[in-house]
Amino acid sequence: MKNILEAIPATLAQELFEDIVSSDQVRIERIVSRGHSSPAQGWYDQAQSEWVMVVRGRAVIAYPDKPPITLGEGDYVTIAAHEKHRVEWTAPDEDTIWLAVHY
Amino acid sequence: MKNILEAIPATLAQELFEDIVSSDQVRIERIVSRGHSSPAQGWYDQAQSEWVMVVRGRAVIAYPDKPPITLGEGDYVTIAAHEKHRVEWTAPDEDTIWLAVHY
Repeated sequence: MKNILEAIPATLAQELFEDIVSSDQVRIERIVSRGHSSPAQGWYDQAQSEWVMVVRGRAVIAYPDKPPITLGEGDYVTIAAHEKHRVEWTAPDEDTIWLAVHY
Repeated sequence: MKNILEAIPATLAQELFEDIVSSDQVRIERIVSRGHSSPAQGWYDQAQSEWVMVVRGRAVIAYPDKPPITLGEGDYVTIAAHEKHRVEWTAPDEDTIWLAVHY
């Protein structure tokens, strides 16, 4: 048994990406952001679908062709394969813990 | 965007099982327990692997051949395909919200 809220480094120079489960069918990932956002240039464009939830913290996901969405604790969204997006903002004053399921 | 903590019925005669994502590769499910446990007889024996996390609440998962584990907020565990288990107990005084990924 592990806990998604624990074992977070004191210093996070970059976002932290860790696989929780990795199988042929699915990859479950924890992401920890501390005021980080996506690289300034360009969009994420992923071959797989992604279901993502904010477990703790706050974040804004932006899209090139629709309004950004603000996610708080428990909010989740599905990002279809090849749906361009970026993390526009995460809370600077607390850790934002994401759970992502790639499938 | 939806929220895993919301839209919980006032009355829960039985545990609530809801698919969040259902694809060929994976099924992501919310389960809400309010003092519920597994049927008294027998064990769950699932053909697929399951990764399960307690988002809110407290629960005990029991196994036929190893000690039970108590899960609180953020605790997660992987249950291998055909690993027999049951939910022995969930908190009677609050909702236990589970996130399960079947793969």
